[in-house]
Amino acid sequence: MKILNTYPVDDQFYMPGEFEAHSGCWLLWPERGDIWPNNALPAQNLLLKLANTICQYENVTLGVSAKNYKDVKKRVCQNVRVVEISYNDIWIRDFGAIFLTNPSKSQLRGVSWNFNAWGGENEGLYFPWDLDNQLSSKMCDLDNIDFYQSNLILEGGSICVDGCGTLITTEECLLNENRNPNKTKDEIEKYLRRYFNVQTVIWLPNGMDEDETGGHVDNICCFTAPNEVLLTWTDDKSDPQWEVSRNAYKELIKHKDKSNNQLKINKIVHPPLISITEEECNLYSEGYKTIKRRAGDKLPASYINFYQNDNAIFFPLFGVETDELALNQIKLIVPQKEIITFQTRDFLLGGGNIHCITQQIPKI
Amino acid sequence: MKILNTYPVDDQFYMPGEFEAHSGCWLLWPERGDIWPNNALPAQNLLLKLANTICQYENVTLGVSAKNYKDVKKRVCQNVRVVEISYNDIWIRDFGAIFLTNPSKSQLRGVSWNFNAWGGENEGLYFPWDLDNQLSSKMCDLDNIDFYQSNLILEGGSICVDGCGTLITTEECLLNENRNPNKTKDEIEKYLRRYFNVQTVIWLPNGMDEDETGGHVDNICCFTAPNEVLLTWTDDKSDPQWEVSRNAYKELIKHKDKSNNQLKINKIVHPPLISITEEECNLYSEGYKTIKRRAGDKLPASYINFYQNDNAIFFPLFGVETDELALNQIKLIVPQKEIITFQTRDFLLGGGNIHCITQQIPKI
Repeated sequence: MKILNTYPVDDQFYMPGEFEAHSGCWLLWPERGDIWPNNALPAQNLLLKLANTICQYENVTLGVSAKNYKDVKKRVCQNVRVVEISYNDIWIRDFGAIFLTNPSKSQLRGVSWNFNAWGGENEGLYFPWDLDNQLSSKMCDLDNIDFYQSNLILEGGSICVDGCGTLITTEECLLNENRNPNKTKDEIEKYLRRYFNVQTVIWLPNGMDEDETGGHVDNICCFTAPNEVLLTWTDDKSDPQWEVSRNAYKELIKHKDKSNNQLKINKIVHPPLISITEEECNLYSEGYKTIKRRAGDKLPASYINFYQNDNAIFFPLFGVETDELALNQIKLIVPQKEIITFQTRDFLLGGGNIHCITQQIPKI
Repeated sequence: MKILNTYPVDDQFYMPGEFEAHSGCWLLWPERGDIWPNNALPAQNLLLKLANTICQYENVTLGVSAKNYKDVKKRVCQNVRVVEISYNDIWIRDFGAIFLTNPSKSQLRGVSWNFNAWGGENEGLYFPWDLDNQLSSKMCDLDNIDFYQSNLILEGGSICVDGCGTLITTEECLLNENRNPNKTKDEIEKYLRRYFNVQTVIWLPNGMDEDETGGHVDNICCFTAPNEVLLTWTDDKSDPQWEVSRNAYKELIKHKDKSNNQLKINKIVHPPLISITEEECNLYSEGYKTIKRRAGDKLPASYINFYQNDNAIFFPLFGVETDELALNQIKLIVPQKEIITFQTRDFLLGGGNIHCITQQIPKI
């Protein structure tokens, strides 16, 4: 409701780890035929399944356009909160408000960033993105949450935090000249410290190869506990991910937390190359300035792109030979949590996965 | 969120008097040039003033279309909650959810009625009204309020209650064949008893003359306290209101409450005929099936059409000779409340007044 003119660091507000308890989760309803094949119907069915599952673990708010409100209300579980809202597409991780809390966890605040659809007129994935850019303010207004407005262009999927003072991001994305061309690495790091209230910023060199977001960290690495990360990993030297993961590892091992403990780095298998088929390509409608898919294009598959709260992990599978190993690995690495799996090719075809289309509200 | 399949009377939920404490108030942003002169700009300015005033007394939620969200956010007080929502026009008293509470005032529930724009294809005031009809469900969803869905066509402005078991309505409106043609008076009264949880229904014969709502009670009579009503009154025999008010009075004096007390009937002056000018008529744009204004048409002016909570009355004035008397009368009749006045000709030009465009949420 109120736009604050201080920084979160001044007010001791910070972003908790996603692995902590949530009071809720936001999702948006896919509907664009130029971004989602087959008029978004398969993505809608998968999203419905995701919403109806997450709402058994935490409150779910599902944003939907006026024209689809009535239909969605009929189809979704009654305990999902359906709200009318407008947006250009559903990537609420990237353009939604990022929610912060204070040390006593008595209050929520939001941060609203600038968003330019992953690159603006220079490699941006669709046009326009004005409604996406307004969404974070609307999310805060709905729930009477005061928010900070940053002028930095930043997507939520390009950072991850442990809630204990450390943030991980990639140089490839945050220093890309199609985001904040007039800001140096130091200046951007200052923003991260002020808005996320962290003491340490770990810069990994790159995100996943051919990731159209420009190298978001949420396809290669995430925190699963304070001082504990999960890194996507392959032993296949012919996969560009081989080098990306090793370079990330080299940065991660340099890091020690406040108590001088080394970061615990768990590895999870990286899936083999998954590509879009010609049949699938034919199922998109034409879009104005929307990125065009071509047969053989790599789909952004990574087991890292899951959604997690304090009790469960909503985990993507791809119908490939590494699925079983990945599932066994995540069960071993996070044995205390329930692992709920989804076959998510229909999300990949839109350009992302479960993490990209969710946004948590921490528990207070 | 949940659609209940019982009746409020079964669950002991009831509608408190509007004069009781509120937790909030809903308003919508006017924007249609065919309903509001001058592209709705004067009505917007007046609504802004109303929102910014009410929010000093209770929480205000202001619904606004996607296209005007950004502009309204900039102009309205920061403590007004602005939410994106779609609607056909702003008469939320009539098509918004009606909020109920339970005897311990620990819980809220909503009632969603059917709405046909005051008469549907037979004398309805605009077309379509599908978004208005969806609004009550959206209001409840936003605030996680379970609701009852009635299939009766009923506008909130056609009833008023004292929160102690009595409801007042008019035969002219509720028995009009353009509302529920297949239901008898007894059947409709049964609905009122079930959904408002009242023991007594007082049927006044008519609403205000030439009122395009078809005789809503909220232009002639309202409760200002349990067992205490305010009735619009004129001594000018040439005014059709002379007979309407006397007929209403005859019905009201018949009523006694549970303790056998007669209803206290206070009178307030009825304004003289106020008409629309030719200049004003020229300021509307053309609308598809929207009622057309003609120079000399009566405007629906009545001092009854105010909004009230437990501390204040938001009171309409018209710039006519009766304004001063009306203001003195309301101050004497409700001396314990603050009276805040608004010159509301710009609301009249859309077809209603302050009461028609507000909807309260009782305090719990």
